[in-house]
Amino acid sequence: MFGAMFSTSLATARTSREGWLRSMLDFEAALAGAEADAGVIPRRAAEDIAANCRAELFDAESIEQRAASSATPVIALVADLGSLVAPDSRPHVHRGATSQDVVDTAAMLIARDVLDAVLADLREAAEHCARLAREHRETPLIARSLLQQALPSTFGLRCAGWLTALDEAIAALRRVRERRLAVQFGGAAGTLASLGAEGPRVLAALAARLDLAEPVLPWHTDRTRIAELGGALGAASGALSKIALDVQLHAQTEVGELAEAAPGGSSAMPHKQNPVSSVLITAGTDRVPGLVSTLLSAMPQAYERAAGAWQSEWEPLGELLRLAASASARARAMLADLRVRTDRMTANLELTGGLVLAENAAGKLMAAMGRDAAQQLVAELCRKAVREGTALRTELLAEPQVRSVLSEAEVHQATDPADYLGAAGDFVDRALAAHAEREDC
Amino acid sequence: MFGAMFSTSLATARTSREGWLRSMLDFEAALAGAEADAGVIPRRAAEDIAANCRAELFDAESIEQRAASSATPVIALVADLGSLVAPDSRPHVHRGATSQDVVDTAAMLIARDVLDAVLADLREAAEHCARLAREHRETPLIARSLLQQALPSTFGLRCAGWLTALDEAIAALRRVRERRLAVQFGGAAGTLASLGAEGPRVLAALAARLDLAEPVLPWHTDRTRIAELGGALGAASGALSKIALDVQLHAQTEVGELAEAAPGGSSAMPHKQNPVSSVLITAGTDRVPGLVSTLLSAMPQAYERAAGAWQSEWEPLGELLRLAASASARARAMLADLRVRTDRMTANLELTGGLVLAENAAGKLMAAMGRDAAQQLVAELCRKAVREGTALRTELLAEPQVRSVLSEAEVHQATDPADYLGAAGDFVDRALAAHAEREDC
Amino acid sequence: MFGAMFSTSLATARTSREGWLRSMLDFEAALAGAEADAGVIPRRAAEDIAANCRAELFDAESIEQRAASSATPVIALVADLGSLVAPDSRPHVHRGATSQDVVDTAAMLIARDVLDAVLADLREAAEHCARLAREHRETPLIARSLLQQALPSTFGLRCAGWLTALDEAIAALRRVRERRLAVQFGGAAGTLASLGAEGPRVLAALAARLDLAEPVLPWHTDRTRIAELGGALGAASGALSKIALDVQLHAQTEVGELAEAAPGGSSAMPHKQNPVSSVLITAGTDRVPGLVSTLLSAMPQAYERAAGAWQSEWEPLGELLRLAASASARARAMLADLRVRTDRMTANLELTGGLVLAENAAGKLMAAMGRDAAQQLVAELCRKAVREGTALRTELLAEPQVRSVLSEAEVHQATDPADYLGAAGDFVDRALAAHAEREDC
Amino acid sequence: MFGAMFSTSLATARTSREGWLRSMLDFEAALAGAEADAGVIPRRAAEDIAANCRAELFDAESIEQRAASSATPVIALVADLGSLVAPDSRPHVHRGATSQDVVDTAAMLIARDVLDAVLADLREAAEHCARLAREHRETPLIARSLLQQALPSTFGLRCAGWLTALDEAIAALRRVRERRLAVQFGGAAGTLASLGAEGPRVLAALAARLDLAEPVLPWHTDRTRIAELGGALGAASGALSKIALDVQLHAQTEVGELAEAAPGGSSAMPHKQNPVSSVLITAGTDRVPGLVSTLLSAMPQAYERAAGAWQSEWEPLGELLRLAASASARARAMLADLRVRTDRMTANLELTGGLVLAENAAGKLMAAMGRDAAQQLVAELCRKAVREGTALRTELLAEPQVRSVLSEAEVHQATDPADYLGAAGDFVDRALAAHAEREDC
Repeated sequence: MFGAMFSTSLATARTSREGWLRSMLDFEAALAGAEADAGVIPRRAAEDIAANCRAELFDAESIEQRAASSATPVIALVADLGSLVAPDSRPHVHRGATSQDVVDTAAMLIARDVLDAVLADLREAAEHCARLAREHRETPLIARSLLQQALPSTFGLRCAGWLTALDEAIAALRRVRERRLAVQFGGAAGTLASLGAEGPRVLAALAARLDLAEPVLPWHTDRTRIAELGGALGAASGALSKIALDVQLHAQTEVGELAEAAPGGSSAMPHKQNPVSSVLITAGTDRVPGLVSTLLSAMPQAYERAAGAWQSEWEPLGELLRLAASASARARAMLADLRVRTDRMTANLELTGGLVLAENAAGKLMAAMGRDAAQQLVAELCRKAVREGTALRTELLAEPQVRSVLSEAEVHQATDPADYLGAAGDFVDRALAAHAEREDC
Repeated sequence: MFGAMFSTSLATARTSREGWLRSMLDFEAALAGAEADAGVIPRRAAEDIAANCRAELFDAESIEQRAASSATPVIALVADLGSLVAPDSRPHVHRGATSQDVVDTAAMLIARDVLDAVLADLREAAEHCARLAREHRETPLIARSLLQQALPSTFGLRCAGWLTALDEAIAALRRVRERRLAVQFGGAAGTLASLGAEGPRVLAALAARLDLAEPVLPWHTDRTRIAELGGALGAASGALSKIALDVQLHAQTEVGELAEAAPGGSSAMPHKQNPVSSVLITAGTDRVPGLVSTLLSAMPQAYERAAGAWQSEWEPLGELLRLAASASARARAMLADLRVRTDRMTANLELTGGLVLAENAAGKLMAAMGRDAAQQLVAELCRKAVREGTALRTELLAEPQVRSVLSEAEVHQATDPADYLGAAGDFVDRALAAHAEREDC
Repeated sequence: MFGAMFSTSLATARTSREGWLRSMLDFEAALAGAEADAGVIPRRAAEDIAANCRAELFDAESIEQRAASSATPVIALVADLGSLVAPDSRPHVHRGATSQDVVDTAAMLIARDVLDAVLADLREAAEHCARLAREHRETPLIARSLLQQALPSTFGLRCAGWLTALDEAIAALRRVRERRLAVQFGGAAGTLASLGAEGPRVLAALAARLDLAEPVLPWHTDRTRIAELGGALGAASGALSKIALDVQLHAQTEVGELAEAAPGGSSAMPHKQNPVSSVLITAGTDRVPGLVSTLLSAMPQAYERAAGAWQSEWEPLGELLRLAASASARARAMLADLRVRTDRMTANLELTGGLVLAENAAGKLMAAMGRDAAQQLVAELCRKAVREGTALRTELLAEPQVRSVLSEAEVHQATDPADYLGAAGDFVDRALAAHAEREDC
Repeated sequence: MFGAMFSTSLATARTSREGWLRSMLDFEAALAGAEADAGVIPRRAAEDIAANCRAELFDAESIEQRAASSATPVIALVADLGSLVAPDSRPHVHRGATSQDVVDTAAMLIARDVLDAVLADLREAAEHCARLAREHRETPLIARSLLQQALPSTFGLRCAGWLTALDEAIAALRRVRERRLAVQFGGAAGTLASLGAEGPRVLAALAARLDLAEPVLPWHTDRTRIAELGGALGAASGALSKIALDVQLHAQTEVGELAEAAPGGSSAMPHKQNPVSSVLITAGTDRVPGLVSTLLSAMPQAYERAAGAWQSEWEPLGELLRLAASASARARAMLADLRVRTDRMTANLELTGGLVLAENAAGKLMAAMGRDAAQQLVAELCRKAVREGTALRTELLAEPQVRSVLSEAEVHQATDPADYLGAAGDFVDRALAAHAEREDC
């Protein structure tokens, strides 16, 4: 009932029963081809096998049901494939392979396709962050720490922070995508014994045919690839969840600085602007740490094939891919059309009557008064403003000690957020430059 | 592709899109009925609504798709229900309820049905443990700590340990089943405002109709119920995973003390007896801690409805129910027909040539020789036996200091595992008695 | 550097090296006493042993260092104890016990002491919630869902929700405290073999002396007790984290409805009122799900003693106890002196110009206009109010269709939050009644 | 009591209260120096500050205690530092920095030092794996899947698998170490506002002085660095836990193929050879997934500083570093002196009477008999051997259909594990070559 909230149609399809079937068949077809390349099986058998490795010829549900009695879908799959091919080809089906070769390689093929979609969405999301950072390089926004107003910053700097995190997440995922998604092929013991001396040649040909990396070794019980994939998806999800949390907070009725373009509404509550996209990003990414933890817990895999730990990876990996795909796609769409309410940003900056600029005001007085005296004076004026419900600017203007140092215009400047933005603009530029550089490579 | 390995057909059905739909409709029907009971809506409208709350009248897939844009399936569901009923009944559909009322109550109904199945399977599994404990009350088995042979025990005592853990897990789940699965009904703000003064009466009637507990308060953002459900399922899964691990270890080729009745085989490796059931129990229960952690992480839910945390519970709760159902059903079946190889248990007890009885032998000598001297002498004879590849029994028989204290028959007794079982039998009896007592209540 | 933020002094002391030492010695003293009771060792030896089981006679740091080479602190502890007692008593030290007996029982003693403190703090925190619920039974507060203003509720109802969750968490912890904290005593194989027939009698005497439950069986590798302890601490932490999150959100500069009595300040930012207690509660409870997950992951423990899983429980259990103690103590203190700003609650209710009462206004028109027409009219007036920046009340008063049904006074009432609180007051009363009932038992 | 089991002395020191103090002071000293470099504060003040940034001048315990009331140790630290320096220097202490700058940068300094030790240990552990792979390139070992004997392999190939996983883990940690450990410096809002235009220059100088990377932006609420650090430590721990599990399994009394050089013993159980190092590696690494999950859960950090999520990272990060350091150091030591019992490896290969070579035997008959007939015949002989308790070799020699194809010598060869190792040797060579290449870079 909730699947469409936490997946994309591509990720759902690729991690579905049919998606797995297709990838397992891709393995069997490529294996036969690679073995024909290496002269291990006849070319004709390889062609026959490949011609029958079409998902529509198989009953995926039946394979799933039969899988439960052997803890692997591969026995049923190979039996069905064997009954489809010509009798002559039958002995050449699945030659030298073991169940784990099929399932692990299928997982890599699925991961590759979903990662490509995730990367495309993340890149587009990053572009939107870059655009927002550029557009709002000068838009004042109150920075908040521990949910309390702190000092002025800019909305552009916030977006630059989102951008940099996404850029890092993308870089990590690309590394995994390119170097760590590898074919698995080792046979029952990881020795490829039944292929005699031809094993490594078949392995190389298989990797080439499937467009996956060729591993140094069969990695049956070396799960660092899965851990790195999980870790990179975890970091990417976390970067997205930060954006989603910010959007939710900015979209609060009382804050109102951001709104999603397509908020969820309520007929009974016409004022509600539910930030549906960011809520669903949060709901999905909140589940990621538990899944990464499950994958890491599965790393100690006994001997040459684990009794449970390996099998525990299958569904969580699929779920992780679906959640990452969904969060990336939603973030892309949400950022593409985010409503930025600069009027509310300005109004909120005024909420404390200038207290958020106390540090700046004190700074302006220091040269003349000394650091301690300046800070004490401003702190006293702040307390007075809070007590009397006035603005700090009013108190500064009314205070002779201040006016002996600062003109009216200077007081106005000292309490203008734009006067106290430090390196915000520089930082935005640095983030944009770093982003542009990454995109080039 | 792996669904059938990690769920039962009942759990799959109840947590499926259609299962959710059915339970959400059960809520709407019962709500209308309860509101008619309380005079809030006309009886005729309630009957019309109930008559249309049949899953086959709805398009579950369409509801799921539309759910994604509002982060709840309820808006679409209510719209579809509204278009099915007579125009007069329409205003009375979903009266006073909010999305969370529907989804939370549906979750409770689903949890109830799956828990009932889990409890039935766990009870049967416990009965099998009780039977094995009784049958093997006297069957010697080497106890092992840190995977090293330690001292003799009995297979019955091991089974009594499994039994006691299952009994505790069952007790905890029953407590949750009976006291903590409650209806949710609070309306948009948790006040049932649109029902005026009738809210609490409708709540009581609704709980009665759905056979769920009536909560003190709407529990929108009090998730202790979910946490306790997760915790109880976590403990039960852990108890099962302990059994599965033991079976796997005992079934090792080199140990061979237990075998599953229906092991998975391999045509190429005729000697393999893969303990498929215990492997799948492990694979499933290994995923449980991450899911419980996700549910606990979702407990801090803001204000009157969370922005993401609540929504993050939905799929993990379903997965947890499926995994618990699957592990319970598999454990029941595996224990029903577990092959106990007492010959291998005996043979393994002999593997160290009696070293595992050194403590007992020393004990027999203490009265005559003093504690320290007896221990030193036996330790020396142990080292000699290891060095020379003989049995401790042989060395004891050959040692004059020993023979001056113990007759040949006494040496044989001292090195007989059955002579050093302590309270093993008593403990088995205690576990069986405690089990019988629990069953009575 | 952060220890004092995430523990209490009691929890720190009880889970420290010295705290463990003390509890392990309590076990050894009680064991000797129990064995003297059962006639297994001489009374004089038991007295000698007990007299030497004083932590100040031992070098805890040295025991910790030596522990690392055997994966247990008990070997070093027993050696040191043996060298303290009279030579005659030495053979009676640690008689029949194994390392796990000592460590598991010590863990239970530590858990008991910390749980008692946690329960006391939680009870006091619950009392404060009850007081706030009573005091603010009529205080209007805008309910918020997905961080958006929804409908009116009361601050009392919110506090009643906190109360009910704490009450449930307390009940679950009490159950664990009273029934599941048990002595561990089984010897190397769980059979108490070296005590012959006296094992169970010693076990019973030991439990009585330590004021812990007597288990049916040694629970070496049945970790349901640990899982239930972890689960109950997890639920309690979650209930606290919900309160902390609410306080943080209400304390936002832009919301300002609650403040901690002792917020953290900043000299440079005089307006900041950091909600330090709730931040630290969140920071601590955020770590709890991972720890519970670690304890659940440790449940599959092989044979009669695990090779790693058991040992992985030790530090996480201590950390969990510290975090729960700290969160409970902070919540108690924070709730004792929470500043409730009813003026800000009122002001925020007005923020949408009465839109949050649209549902109520429509309800008042339905009898006369019909449900659909009433809802459509109010929805139109809401849109108009938003468009023109007026209040819904203004639009209602200006609309002839409304005025033909409702007088000016009735319009004012319809847009008064106090008019649309439904069962809020009833629910508060129910929560208080349920709380009082629990306290009685 | 368990600290020494789960940490190294270096990791304990670096993550202790005093270790944090030292690193926070290193930040303050370097900051003053960098600000003098940039002309922001007087050189003399910087020198005075640096001269007082010595841990022995501070009371770490007092700072920790005071930290609890502001949720940061930095306010107390800066106050104490201010009171140590000359009055003239006081205004220049901690200039422009915020608490998070100090704590985050200190965390990076601590991580760097521990990572360096982890990397050194992992490299040495990898070297031992390489040595073992080389030495045992030809040592036959039965490969096991699902804990069942499968087909022959070599111990060298197993060690090559360990090696490759460690090499990957090292590469990932190095990447984090070199590129992702960065200085944090942004001031209260991330703008460095109080430094005017000089912020970025100070940032660069600070990074250079501390030998940490200079970030594009302050990363207050971009926690991808922490996530990547956690992920890389998680993968490394998982690679070590796989080795530890294998050692424990091989060291079982019934398997006996490996032993630790310094096993833990038991006076009462002289035959026990507890694999203490691998048990402690497992116990430590089992706790890692929960910690990584906690760090990932902390990624959504609100606005410019999180209200709890950031603070929840501190202790778990320290614990993760300790556990990784401990596991690495123990694995290095264990592998340095692992006892390989090739006699037991050979004996275990014989345990099934040659059944593990059935696949090879069938292969030898295929050319003459056809694939199906050969497999059926061998399967029948296997069943006979199991039934009659003989060896497959015996049955092959006695079977006329076999002897018409294979000579006695050929039957012996077909049932010799060394005849069926496939690419095991090649794969070892590939792993060693890849390892050598990595070391070069």
